[in-house]
Amino acid sequence: MAIIESVPNISEGIRTDVVARIADALGAVSGVRVLDVQSDATHNRSVLTLAGDAAGLRQAIPRLVSMTMEAVDLRTHRGEHPRLGAVDVVPFIPIEGATMADCVALARDIGKDVADRLGVPVYLYEEAAQRPDRRNLEDIRRGEFEGLAEKMAKPGWAPDFGPSQPHPSAGATVIGARMPLIAYNINLATNRLDVAKKIATAVRMSSGGLRFVKAMGLPLEDRGVVQVSMNLTNYEKTPIFRVFDLVQREAARYGVNVLESEIVGLVPQAALMQAAEYYLQLEGFSAQQVLENKLRE
Amino acid sequence: MAIIESVPNISEGIRTDVVARIADALGAVSGVRVLDVQSDATHNRSVLTLAGDAAGLRQAIPRLVSMTMEAVDLRTHRGEHPRLGAVDVVPFIPIEGATMADCVALARDIGKDVADRLGVPVYLYEEAAQRPDRRNLEDIRRGEFEGLAEKMAKPGWAPDFGPSQPHPSAGATVIGARMPLIAYNINLATNRLDVAKKIATAVRMSSGGLRFVKAMGLPLEDRGVVQVSMNLTNYEKTPIFRVFDLVQREAARYGVNVLESEIVGLVPQAALMQAAEYYLQLEGFSAQQVLENKLRE
Repeated sequence: MAIIESVPNISEGIRTDVVARIADALGAVSGVRVLDVQSDATHNRSVLTLAGDAAGLRQAIPRLVSMTMEAVDLRTHRGEHPRLGAVDVVPFIPIEGATMADCVALARDIGKDVADRLGVPVYLYEEAAQRPDRRNLEDIRRGEFEGLAEKMAKPGWAPDFGPSQPHPSAGATVIGARMPLIAYNINLATNRLDVAKKIATAVRMSSGGLRFVKAMGLPLEDRGVVQVSMNLTNYEKTPIFRVFDLVQREAARYGVNVLESEIVGLVPQAALMQAAEYYLQLEGFSAQQVLENKLRE
Repeated sequence: MAIIESVPNISEGIRTDVVARIADALGAVSGVRVLDVQSDATHNRSVLTLAGDAAGLRQAIPRLVSMTMEAVDLRTHRGEHPRLGAVDVVPFIPIEGATMADCVALARDIGKDVADRLGVPVYLYEEAAQRPDRRNLEDIRRGEFEGLAEKMAKPGWAPDFGPSQPHPSAGATVIGARMPLIAYNINLATNRLDVAKKIATAVRMSSGGLRFVKAMGLPLEDRGVVQVSMNLTNYEKTPIFRVFDLVQREAARYGVNVLESEIVGLVPQAALMQAAEYYLQLEGFSAQQVLENKLRE
């Protein structure tokens, strides 16, 4: 059975009882599991991690949108994180036996369904985008809820599905398909913030680095060291090991060593297998050789 | 549910219909799956790979012993591989949620049961051994079936369970518990066999190297290169990455590069995760962060 991950971001991070009620309702859908719920009060936003088959997600996501629309009114919502809607963004991510094409189809199906039934405008993003200027979530979200009515009135900003005006209390929702995102940090054995910032500039796409890397340099004040904090947005095309090697090489330029690296949250097995294959120079290796995978065939 | 692997080696590798019938009977046991069957006609020996819970294996292994005893007569058996019994050796290997202690207990349980019910002497080996001179399979098997009656008459060679004389047609069976074995080869970018042999000598335990490495140097005639061919008998204590790094370092001593490495057959996920953690200097990583593991919790 093909498994797809979905990571809805909703604009409620303070009333955790509301979030728990929504998560419970999603977990009750056959074929869907709630893997994780993270609420941030400062951002006033929660991130739910679901996994399931297409049929289960087709049932769960409209339920999520409907429950969140009943509970959240963006006209009175305050939080640090930018947002366009009560349900802000819903990505679908291929995991096991599912392709990106499956996720694109599911995003468009569910997007249309949600817009038709619940009256919220839906924008399609990343791999599900129907025009190139909607691939990037930040471009769609720029102006936020408060600027949405004005933005939607401009040429080129009609939604992919649903009404041509914002939903009064729920704004708009961005739905799409993307690769799993890996939160990957490399800590450097130095307190020189300029070094972390220079390396971040060197490795990230926006300033000339690797295509699927977002990066910034940060101080870890309590430890007296600095960090290159990254998001890897496509580990198949920009693998972890290449990022690690490049950061290590750039750090050597400043006489600095890598102290350690860390993966925050979940990571696909394949992303780590790649690293083992690369460093061990493994030839002809297949995921079928992993005992645990074989056991579950 | 705790999953244990078992890899029975039986002394029949020519009559594949006999082996298939036995494999089918094991696969029919509830809670047991047959992952692989490899028959070698020159060795006249087959290796079956099973996975299951303890209850399933308690039913499957005596069935395997009984069916093999009916089909194989060691008095007329010829093959290149050393063997002591119709069912020659049955290791139990901890996989998921199972400990080595579970496997030791299972080996002793099943060993006693098989000896009592089927009248075949059973020796316990490796982690299940009850005396240090029975840890090593080769020591137990030395003399083979043909020398077994004489060996069993000597002091110190009474079996752990069962009759004090060989079974007339089925000899004796060696049952035990061990870590998963990883067949790991490193090919060198040279045709100098002496270099492969020197490196094998340096890295294997028997001549002063790493505790859980068996190694030999071989020519790969058709490719014009040489190979350090290894068995890693405990990847937790002697990890793959340390073996790779050591071979690479020793090869550099002779001005030789590592061409590639290969894993033959199955490998536990953890053995490759270790390598990723080591080379990426990953701190605080847990197997729970692997998305596929989380999905199956």
